[in-house]
Amino acid sequence: SKSYNITLLPGDGIGPEVISVAKNALQLVASIEGFEVAFEEMPMGGAALDAVGVPLPAETLNSAKKSDATLLGAIGGYKWDKNEKHLKPETGLLQLREGLQVFANLRPATVLPQLVDASTLKKEVAEGVDLMVVRELTGGIYFGKPRGFSTNENGQEIGFNTEVYAAYEIDRIARIAFETARKRRGKLCSVDKANVLEASMLWRKIVTALASEYPDVELSHMYVDNAAMQLVRNPKQFDTIVTNNIFGDILSDEASMITGSIGMLPSASLGAAGPGLFEPIHGSAPDIAGQDKANPLATMLSAAMLLKYGLGEEKAAQRIEAAVLDALNRGFRTGDIHSAGHKLVGCKEMGEEVLKSI
Amino acid sequence: SKSYNITLLPGDGIGPEVISVAKNALQLVASIEGFEVAFEEMPMGGAALDAVGVPLPAETLNSAKKSDATLLGAIGGYKWDKNEKHLKPETGLLQLREGLQVFANLRPATVLPQLVDASTLKKEVAEGVDLMVVRELTGGIYFGKPRGFSTNENGQEIGFNTEVYAAYEIDRIARIAFETARKRRGKLCSVDKANVLEASMLWRKIVTALASEYPDVELSHMYVDNAAMQLVRNPKQFDTIVTNNIFGDILSDEASMITGSIGMLPSASLGAAGPGLFEPIHGSAPDIAGQDKANPLATMLSAAMLLKYGLGEEKAAQRIEAAVLDALNRGFRTGDIHSAGHKLVGCKEMGEEVLKSI
Ligand SMILES: CC(C)[C@H](C(=O)O)[C@@H](O)C(=O)O
Ligand SMILES: CC(C)[C@H](C(=O)O)[C@@H](O)C(=O)O
Repeated sequence: SKSYNITLLPGDGIGPEVISVAKNALQLVASIEGFEVAFEEMPMGGAALDAVGVPLPAETLNSAKKSDATLLGAIGGYKWDKNEKHLKPETGLLQLREGLQVFANLRPATVLPQLVDASTLKKEVAEGVDLMVVRELTGGIYFGKPRGFSTNENGQEIGFNTEVYAAYEIDRIARIAFETARKRRGKLCSVDKANVLEASMLWRKIVTALASEYPDVELSHMYVDNAAMQLVRNPKQFDTIVTNNIFGDILSDEASMITGSIGMLPSASLGAAGPGLFEPIHGSAPDIAGQDKANPLATMLSAAMLLKYGLGEEKAAQRIEAAVLDALNRGFRTGDIHSAGHKLVGCKEMGEEVLKSI
Repeated sequence: SKSYNITLLPGDGIGPEVISVAKNALQLVASIEGFEVAFEEMPMGGAALDAVGVPLPAETLNSAKKSDATLLGAIGGYKWDKNEKHLKPETGLLQLREGLQVFANLRPATVLPQLVDASTLKKEVAEGVDLMVVRELTGGIYFGKPRGFSTNENGQEIGFNTEVYAAYEIDRIARIAFETARKRRGKLCSVDKANVLEASMLWRKIVTALASEYPDVELSHMYVDNAAMQLVRNPKQFDTIVTNNIFGDILSDEASMITGSIGMLPSASLGAAGPGLFEPIHGSAPDIAGQDKANPLATMLSAAMLLKYGLGEEKAAQRIEAAVLDALNRGFRTGDIHSAGHKLVGCKEMGEEVLKSI
C-alpha cells in the first residue's frame, strides 16, 4: 500500500495543540482510505530558537525537503519579538518558504452558513463569500535585493527594500491562478498598483498576456487600494484573486477576517515540483497557548489541503472536510466561533468530535 | 479684511461638479466670517492631458505653490488608463504632491450616526468609528529610486521599485501623527511590516524614539496585515494611525469603506511650510460624471479642512461641517448614501441644501 512521509512542524504558542489534533485526523483517514503515513516532528520558529539557536535548523529544512508534504502549526511570540532579524521566528518561516521554493500560496476565505454570524459584516454581505487568494510567496519585496540600512548623501540613516519581479515569476504564479480560477467559478482578478509601480506594470503585462491561453477564465485587474475597499463593500464579487507577496499578505488577512472565523482558514503553499507546505492562516496566539482553547479546525482543513494538493488523496481530504462540517452541524464550537445555543468545547474535544465524524 | 487665494483643480469625471458646489460654500462662509477668497481655476489630470498634453502643467503647479491652499476635485478615467506612465492623470497627482512637498496626508474615517446603516459592517461594529489615518505622502515606494525595467542575469525582463525611508522623513510624519493623536483621543498606532522589511524596522525605531517627547500619547505598533484585519474586526480600537505611503494608500481606503460613505470623506495633505492640498477621498467616478448624481459632501468637508488646516479659519470650517450635518439631519441624501425614508437629491440640490444650512 502507498506510504507517505509527512514533516510536522508544531512551532510555537497554540501550534503544538492544533498539530497534535490534525495528526490524529491524518492517521485516521489514512487507515480508512488504505494508505500509510509516517510523521517526522521537527523544531521550527521560536521553539527552534530556544532549542538550537536558529529559527530554521538545517535538519528541519532537510526533513521538509525529503518528505512528501509539511504541516506547520504556527510560529512566533512576544518572547522573540525583539530579536534581531536573523533570529526572529518569522525569518525561519521565510527561509522555509524559500528553501522549499513554494512560490504559490493558496488562501481560501469561505463563509460557512453555520458561521455567518461570526463575521462583523452584515449577514447579507457575508453570506456566500467564497474566494481564493493566490499570493506570490517567494519573490517581491520580501526577498528583493538590495535591502538593508545605509546613509544617504546627506548623512541621514536610511532603510530600504526592493520590490522586484522577473517575468518568469509572474508567469508561473499567474498560471496557477488561472488554473485555480478555471476549477472554481472562472473569474480571476489580478491586483496590483500599476498606476504607480513599475513592478506592477510588468505584473499586469504578463498576466494580461496569459489571458489568451485561458479563454474560459474572465480576467479583470484592480488596484490594491480599491481591492482593500471592495473586500469590505462586496466580497462576493470575488472568485479568485492573484497578487504579489506583500499585497497578498495584506489582502488575504483582510479577506480572512471578513469571514469572521480566522480560526477556520487553511492555506497551501506549493512549488513547481517538490513538496508543499500547509498551515493555518492564524498565528500562534501566545495568550491562549497551552490552555486547550485553540480552534484546531484551520489546521485540520490545512491537513485536508495537504491530502488534496500535496498527496493527491482527494477522498481522504474530503473525509476531513466533511467531518469538520459535521462537527459544526452537531453544534460544537471553540471559543473563537462560539455563539449562544452551541456547545463550547476546547481544542482536544473539538478534535475528538471531528474524529467521530470521520 | 483678510484675503486668500485658492487654487481650484476640478480635474476629471465628477470633479468639476463637486468643486463648483464647494466653491459656493467657501464663498458664502467667507462673506459671513468677513474674509475674502479669490479663486484661480486650473487644469489638471486628464483634463490637462486633453488640453495641453501633460497631466500637471507648470502653470497649474505654480498657481498651487503661490496660492494659500489648493482644492482638488478628482482625477482619472478610463480614457487615459492605457497612457504611458508619464502621461497618466495619476502621475500629475504625484507630481503635485511632490511639487508642493505635502508629506503628511490626513484621512479621517468617521461613521456619522445619520449614516451608520450605509456601512456593510454590523451596526454595533460600525457605530462610533472615528479614526484618522496619517499617511506619509512624498516618500517610500511611490518615489523611491532606483525604479524601472531592466533584465536580470538570466536575460529575463524585470520590473522594480525601491521602498526607502530616511530618518528625517519618518521623524517629521511621526511628529505630525503624535500631534494629531494628542488633539484627538491620545492613541497612536504605527503600522509597519518590521518583521520582514528593513525600511519598516527603521520606521519603528524612529517612531519609538519619539514617544518620550509625547508622554501623553499612548503609542502602539501593529503589522500591516494585522491592521488590515483589525480594521474589519473592530475599527473602534483605533484613534490615530500613522503609516508609510503604500500601506497608507491601502489602509485608508479600507478604513473609508468601513464607514460605508466614501462620498463623505475629505482629506488634507500638508507640508512643513507652504500651502496644503485638499481633496475628497473618492475618485472621479466617470460612470456618473455629468449626471448631477455625485455626492458633493466629501469635497465640502475637504473645503472645511482647507479652511481649518490651510487658512486657520476654524470658525468658517465649523460652519461648513455643521451645515453638512444639518442637511443630513433634514433628510437629504445623494444616491450613494440614500436609504428609505430620506429625500433623494442630486449634486447641485445637495449643495444648495448645505448652503441653506450655512
Ligand atoms: C509571519 C510573517 C512573516 C508572514 C508573512 O508576512 O508572510 C505572515 O504574516 C503570513 O502571512 O504568513
Ligand atoms: C491615484 C493614486 C496615484 C493615488 C495614490 O495611490 O496615492 C490614490 O489612490 C490616492 O490614494 O490618493
